[in-house]
This record gives sequence, C-alpha cells and structure tokens, in this order.
Amino acid sequence: MTTNSSPQLWLYDTTLRDGTQREGLSVSIEDKLRIARRLDQLGIPFIEGGWPGANPKDVQFFWQLQEDPLKQAEIVAFCSTRRPNSAAATEPMLQDILAAGTRWVTIFGKSWDLHVTTGLKTTLEENLAMISDTIEYLRSQGRRIIYDAEHWFDGYKHNRDYALQTLEAAIASGAEWLVLCDTNGGTLPHEISQIVQDVSSHLLLVMSQEPMTKDKGQRTMPQIGIHTHNDSEMAVANAIAAVMAGAKMVQGTINGYGERCGNANLCSLIPNLQLKAGYSCITEDQLTQLTEVSRFVSEVVNLAPDEHAPFVGRSAFAHKGGIHVSAVERNPLTYEHIQPEQVGNRRRIVISEQSGLSNVLAKARSFGIELDQQKAEAREILQRLKDLESEGFQFEAAEASFVLLMHEALGDRQKFFEVKGFQVHCDLIEGKETSNALATVKVAVDGKNILEAAEGNGPVAALDAALRKALVNFYPQIATFDLTDYKVRILNGHTGTAAKTRVLVESGNGRQRWTTVGVSTNILEASYQAVVEGLEYGLLLHSQAEAVVKASA
Amino acid sequence: MTTNSSPQLWLYDTTLRDGTQREGLSVSIEDKLRIARRLDQLGIPFIEGGWPGANPKDVQFFWQLQEDPLKQAEIVAFCSTRRPNSAAATEPMLQDILAAGTRWVTIFGKSWDLHVTTGLKTTLEENLAMISDTIEYLRSQGRRIIYDAEHWFDGYKHNRDYALQTLEAAIASGAEWLVLCDTNGGTLPHEISQIVQDVSSHLLLVMSQEPMTKDKGQRTMPQIGIHTHNDSEMAVANAIAAVMAGAKMVQGTINGYGERCGNANLCSLIPNLQLKAGYSCITEDQLTQLTEVSRFVSEVVNLAPDEHAPFVGRSAFAHKGGIHVSAVERNPLTYEHIQPEQVGNRRRIVISEQSGLSNVLAKARSFGIELDQQKAEAREILQRLKDLESEGFQFEAAEASFVLLMHEALGDRQKFFEVKGFQVHCDLIEGKETSNALATVKVAVDGKNILEAAEGNGPVAALDAALRKALVNFYPQIATFDLTDYKVRILNGHTGTAAKTRVLVESGNGRQRWTTVGVSTNILEASYQAVVEGLEYGLLLHSQAEAVVKASA
Repeated sequence: MTTNSSPQLWLYDTTLRDGTQREGLSVSIEDKLRIARRLDQLGIPFIEGGWPGANPKDVQFFWQLQEDPLKQAEIVAFCSTRRPNSAAATEPMLQDILAAGTRWVTIFGKSWDLHVTTGLKTTLEENLAMISDTIEYLRSQGRRIIYDAEHWFDGYKHNRDYALQTLEAAIASGAEWLVLCDTNGGTLPHEISQIVQDVSSHLLLVMSQEPMTKDKGQRTMPQIGIHTHNDSEMAVANAIAAVMAGAKMVQGTINGYGERCGNANLCSLIPNLQLKAGYSCITEDQLTQLTEVSRFVSEVVNLAPDEHAPFVGRSAFAHKGGIHVSAVERNPLTYEHIQPEQVGNRRRIVISEQSGLSNVLAKARSFGIELDQQKAEAREILQRLKDLESEGFQFEAAEASFVLLMHEALGDRQKFFEVKGFQVHCDLIEGKETSNALATVKVAVDGKNILEAAEGNGPVAALDAALRKALVNFYPQIATFDLTDYKVRILNGHTGTAAKTRVLVESGNGRQRWTTVGVSTNILEASYQAVVEGLEYGLLLHSQAEAVVKASA
Repeated sequence: MTTNSSPQLWLYDTTLRDGTQREGLSVSIEDKLRIARRLDQLGIPFIEGGWPGANPKDVQFFWQLQEDPLKQAEIVAFCSTRRPNSAAATEPMLQDILAAGTRWVTIFGKSWDLHVTTGLKTTLEENLAMISDTIEYLRSQGRRIIYDAEHWFDGYKHNRDYALQTLEAAIASGAEWLVLCDTNGGTLPHEISQIVQDVSSHLLLVMSQEPMTKDKGQRTMPQIGIHTHNDSEMAVANAIAAVMAGAKMVQGTINGYGERCGNANLCSLIPNLQLKAGYSCITEDQLTQLTEVSRFVSEVVNLAPDEHAPFVGRSAFAHKGGIHVSAVERNPLTYEHIQPEQVGNRRRIVISEQSGLSNVLAKARSFGIELDQQKAEAREILQRLKDLESEGFQFEAAEASFVLLMHEALGDRQKFFEVKGFQVHCDLIEGKETSNALATVKVAVDGKNILEAAEGNGPVAALDAALRKALVNFYPQIATFDLTDYKVRILNGHTGTAAKTRVLVESGNGRQRWTTVGVSTNILEASYQAVVEGLEYGLLLHSQAEAVVKASA
C-alpha cells in the first residue's frame, strides 16, 4: 500500500501519440480531447498529445487545448531533434512545436550509433550536435525538456560509450528528464535493471566531475524515465525493473495500445507500482477510476475491451461457482491478489452476478437523482441494468440512456413522443453510382399519430431526418440539435453478419453533448433506438432548463 | 542463441487443463487430441491432459491416448491430494488417475496454512499427511510424480516454515519435481527470484542434513518448476525470473489461455528463454512452428487470435511508413528484436496512407505478385491506394481487397461474377417486438442475370444470404465459406449519421481467413462491397488451389 512516505513517481501517458500507432486505431480531434480530459481527471501528470506539424489533426488538438486547457496535467508536444546539418532556430518543425504552446516538450533523439550512420546517414558528432542544439533552442524559448533516448537499450549494448555521450549532450543542454526507451521491445528485465543502474552511476560520476558553473547555465541532475514496448511480453515488468533501479518517470499507454505488440500498459503498471511495489503515482480515489478509464478509452477508440486484461478486465476477478465462491466471500485475499474495488473493478461470480447497488446509487447521484437504497426502485434499476447489459447494452459511455432508464424506473420519465415503428428502403440500382435510402417513421405526440418520410445518403441519416421532420413542429428546439458522433460496435463478431450490433450516438445542442445507446441484431434498429433516445434526452435537457428559468423568474 | 551447451529446461504445457479454465473456452475430446498431437510435434516434453475422473471427457481423452499414444511427449494426468482423514489406497479419485495409464502424474496440494484450515478445514499435520500419502501410494503403483505446490508464493509469505514443510513432505515421499505456483498471480518478479533462491538453498540444506538411507527408499534432490498466472501482467516475467533463480521446469499455456487473466504464455516464454536468455527448450526447427501452433490452437478453440501478441501475432513484426521500411529491409535488427522467421512469423509491411512505393512492392511480393518498380502499374497501384485511402478505405487490415486491387491494376482480375445492384427493406411494425430485413440482389455470371431474395435478422445478414443463394449454383465451394467477423467504423463521426462508414468483413473457408473492406456513407452499401469482395477473394483462392493441383497432376 502507498503511504505518505512512499517514493513519488511521475506517470507519462502516450496513448494519444504512441498509442495511436496501433494498427487499426484511429482517433478524431474530438476523441483525443475527450481522452486527454479523462486522463487529466485520473491524475496523470504528463500527457503526450502528439506531434504538432506532423499532421493537421495534432496542430488543431494543441490549439483547442490552448483555448480550454487541462485542469492539472501538463500536455506535452513531441518531436524529433532537428535534421542533420541545419540549425534548430530555423527548423520549421520546431516552430510548429513552439506554436503548440506547451510548457513541456519531449524531444527524441538517436542513441544507437548504427541508427545515426545508416538511418540518419550522418556522423556521430552531428547527432550529438542535433540533440544539444534542439534542446538548447527550445530551452531558450522557455520550454522545459524531456529527452526520449530512442533505441536506448540496443544502442547501449552495441556501443555503451556513444550511447552515454548522447545522454550527456542532453544533460549539458538542459534536459530535465532522460527517458530510456526500449524501442524494439527486445530487452529482458535483468538487463534493464543492470543498464539503468549503470546509467545512474555513470551520470552521477559525470556530474560530480564537471565544474559547477559553465556558460550553458546551471545544470541540475536530470531524472531518469523509462519507456518500454511489449514485443517480449515484458513491457510492464521492464518498466517496474527500471523503477526499482531508480527511474522516476514511467511512460505507457492506456490498455497498452501501441505499435506492433503495444506499449507498457498503464492499467497494469499503476496498480502494480502503487499497490505492490510501494510507490506513489495517483491518489487512492483516482486509482478507483482505473477500470472506468480503461473502458472509456476503448469505447472512444472503438476497440473491444480485453476482457482478460489484468486489473481492469471483466474477467480479472471472475470466480467460478462452488466452494471457491464461498471461500472468496469469507476471505477474498485467499483467491484475489488485490481487492478489485481498489482499481474500480468488481468481483464477478460467474454463475450468480454480484450486485453493484452502490455503483448505481453513486451514478444516479452524479445526475442529481437521489435514490433510496432501501426502496424497490434502486434494485429495479440495478436489475434492469443487468438485464440490458447481458443483452449487450453498455451504459459507461451512454449516460443519457442511463438517465432515461432511471426516470423510467422511478415512474417520472417524460413522454415527449411515442415511437410507433419505422421502415427503411435502400437500393443501388443497376447503372447508378450511388445508393439511395428512404425512411418512413411513425410517432405519436399527445395521442396524435404522425407519419413522415425522408431521404438520406444512408439509411441512418434517412431515419434521423424523418424523425426530426415528424417532431420539429411540436418541439422547435429540435432544429438546434445535431448528431455529433456515431459509433458502431459488433458485439459477437464470431457469428459474422448475424452478430449483435451496439450503436452509440452522440448528440449536441450547441452547449451540451450527450450519448445514447441502442442494441439489436439489426444495425438499423439499434441506430434508430439510439437516435430516438438522443432526441428524447435533448428534449429533457431543454425542459429542465426551462423549469430552472421559470423558477428563477 | 541456444547452443549445444545451453542449459536444458523442461516445458510443461497445461493448455488442456488450466487453459480450458478460461471463460468462454470449451473443447471437445477431438479438439483436445488434436492440440495434444500438435504440441507433441512442437517438442513439448510434458503435456498435462486434464483431471481424469473430474469429468467424463477427460477419462475418454486418456483412454484414446492409451490406444494411440503421443510420439515423444509424456501425457500427464492431474489431480489433488486425497481428502482429509482418508487413505490414498482407497480413494476412488486416485483409481481414476491410475486408470488413465500415464507414466507421470501431477499432484497438487496446499502450501498456504490459511487454505488448509479455512478451505480444507483440516489440520496442518493432516495436510502434510495427505501430500505424503498420496504421492507414496502413486509411487507404489509405479507412477512418477510432479508436485504442484498451490498458492506457494502467498503461502511462503504468510508462513514460510509451514510452506517449506509441505515441500519436504513431497520430497520425502518421492516427488521428482516441485512446482512452485503463483496461483493468484499477484507476485512480482523480484519476489519470485528471492523466494525461488531461498527454496533452493533450503532444500539443499535439508537434503544434506538428512541421512542418506531411510525406509522410504532412496531420495534424490528434486528439481524446481514454476507455474505462474497473469493477474499482474507478470506471468512471463515471473517464469523467467524463476528460471534465472534455478527453476528447471516451466509451466504455461499456448496463447496464455487460462482462468481470469490467463497463465504464462508459452508463445512468449519459449522464444524469450531460447533466443534471449540462452536456455534450450525445443529445437530451432520446432521453434519455427510456434506461430503456426499459436494460430492452430486459437482456431481449434475458436477464439480470435490476438493480432498484437508478442512473437506470434500478425502485428508483431508490422512496419509502417516509407523510410522505416527501407531501413528494415537494409538491416532488420535495427527495428526488430528477433528475426520473425525464427518463430515462424513474418515481417509485414503495413499498407497505409504514408506508404511509399517500396511498401507496395514489398507487399505485392508477399502475395506472390512481382511488380516492376519501373513500370507504370506499380505507380498506378500506389496512386489508386492513396485515392482510396483518402476516401476512407483502409487496407492495413484488408489485405484481400488489396490483392484484388493489384490484380485490377495489372489487368488480370478474374471476373467470377458481376454485381448489378441490390435492394434492402427493413421495418419495425407497430406492435411488433422485432424488426424484419429483406434483401434482393442482382448479379451476372457468364452474362446471365440472376435475381435472388433472402431474409435475415438484420439487413447485412439478408444481403449476404441473398448473394450466396445467387452464386452457389455456379460456385458450389461458396457453401464452405463463412463470415467469421464483421467490424464497422464510422470515419468522420463529426457529421453524425451522415458520416462515412467503413466495414471490414473477415471470411474463411475452414483453412484460411481473409479480410475485405467497403466504404460508403450508406452502411449497407459499404457492407455489401465488403461481402462481395470476400466472396470474390474466396473464389480466387479456390481457383489458385485448383491450378496448383492441376499443375502437379
């Protein structure tokens, strides 16, 4: 357990940069902002946002954060050292970095002589100059520097002296952190321990031998960080080995996303460091958000969560029936390495689901709905929630649907309209380039049936248009609503096109955004459910706002 | 690298016992036999087959192996120590074990005092008697014994003396292997190292103090094994830490299957031990089967392979970007921790937006298509690729569609059928619970138009069914194709339901799997494109296979 005297570690998240290198993962600016804000709440002190300039998306992302900054975390811009035989001050790439407006910049440079001569095709001396010049220039512009030593461990094994010189260049030019990277992910923990220890002692020696004053300004002993990849299934173990050898910063990604086999998984690293190895990273309260953050990120990037993931997976604390279960209930530590609640997960008894009543109460409270634990409604909501989740619904990222469900159970769900049915027709006619979609919907408002039809460039767009057409005369505020995001997840991929589909729809009214969910084997029906609830929740927000205005008038 | 003088390790596979504890994994007797024979070929010396008597499937499995034994491997039966206050010789469970007819038996017993008193509800002395009596009896029946010390590391931490006594009981009764189990998966590598070292020295001391002759017969120093679980994402690192501290047997499962977060993954352990840590486990030739074995087992147990798995995953040696690719081709070790061929995997050049000509050429070559860099086709393919990717297509995960695209550009794409158009109708009628989907397709084969209609529980299932119905009379092999996965991604979420949709469809023919892609604002049209190309590529594979058969006839 962490105590007040536990040594502090600095977490550095690179989900938004290295994590997005994972094959098949792509994110919008909006996705990146949502993830950054969630990581900020989790208490991650450094969040690497991307490489501004490398693509327009990252430029935009940093601009948006300048307008509406994170609360606690430092957002970090990432880029390489300048090109060979140029000057940092005139390097356009570095101007993009400065324009990102971050306090901290992570600069990565080559540690491995082979990469310098065959990759960069320059001299070993020029590489050292590239490191110093880049860091010095950014320092002169007021930036604080984290230096990522790329291919560090391979470089060290091939040419220890040169690898150490690259770190010395980074220190001399004012880097505050030296992050040792196992870029190819091939190193084993005992090598990591030995090399990190050697680097620490070497740097201490160098620092003690150098005169204290130099024209470069004051030099403080930088701290060591670790950045590992999972190619040997060792990313988490290697990061912990480095910490035990003295590293103070740990880089990783949520769910271990990253190129090839991924990066060190923060969802395993944080609880290992904090609950077992006795380091302090985030608060205990923040740690209880870990499972939710893991699932939130997987929803946003639209990848199925790994049910067997350590700590945060749905099966991580699953127990099968019989004696085992009663033993676990008598003394959980006999069959569980930590208490699942410490990371916001829960014990799951595979045969009879265990209740999460306190979760429901806490959730309801966060939406201003006070439920009484003793009353039937709370249990009814829990039961309904479990039934729906076993059908494939998921409310973690669809809180608007959850609020509607609670009102339903409490008997005070406002009936703005009633859904009667829909029809969709699509065709791609011979000789035509594009397909056609036509939707008809039937809804009732105040007992009056309305039948409307609309076209769209896809069946869901047509359904959405028909619904709005049917309702806008009764609720003109619908004209201000828009659908801002639409996500589809196939739940049981195994059964091919007959699989169940979960649709998440994000809607907005210019001031707020909310997400609703639908599930069906028919993708159109699932979409329809989510679009309908999206409109309903928007109307609910509007009527609540009106009530507030009236009350204060 | 392994040499003739590399220290030998004994691998012990428990995929068929502990591996099947994974939630959602179930196997038939036939599946178990196929996996056992494949592991035998791979060179695994000990294969745990199950707990005969615990279920009828495992009894059958061992009987079948008595009739038709494995070539090299020892098949091992697994069971617990006898019940408290009974006698091993009259314990029915042990008669089932003897009936299994194996040379080796693994007996697991309690190491943790708490589990003895609260779980077994017996005395610490009786537990020691249960261990000795069970092992002695099986020894008297000619069996050789591996003793699995359950909850070893937790037991050691809570009561070292008692935990060591359980091992001494196992040694005294003639166990040849003592396997230390991290049953709850909560231990970190530095603890494993320290505890394994302590056990080794303690046992050496005990053995040296005991008189050489005792009525129990001759006692040899047993060897130590390690059995780890992945609850802290440490199963592989812990097993290696134990080996480095002196363990000679490593237990694990293929693909890390197992309860909760799984067991130590042999697909990572074997190459780490053999290619990096300098131990000898299987031959170099056998090691090149590893990727195939991993995929074979995932096929047999019907779980999607983990594409990001270390060593054996499809993405484990995937490279993006132009410069990176040419560097890798010049000197693979600069970007790869091992040569993929050593474990039977291959380098994969990821085709994506950033891809340059060298990517395309390398990719084409991997599909047996030789493109001439100087000719127009190569540049045409690259251009077409970029155009399609800017429209939202993505070929990273849809190599089958990429192959069709290359054939199209080369002018030799086989026309198995021509798509004319489709119509889809869905409705959810007032008062009905579920929606309905009906699809009509029009295709032409050899200039003949075919019009077919089919229903489904969603529009895509209906489209797929109609297409198969239209084509199966011309291409009966279509009956063996199936859709194995279906993924949907909304590309520009911002524009809501009018967004573009990318659909990936994975198809199979029982031997191979391939993925195709479709993109449209209309989700049904995108699905239709991907399903159509999936069928086309399956037909292409079939006709290539037939051509090979003809050529060799």
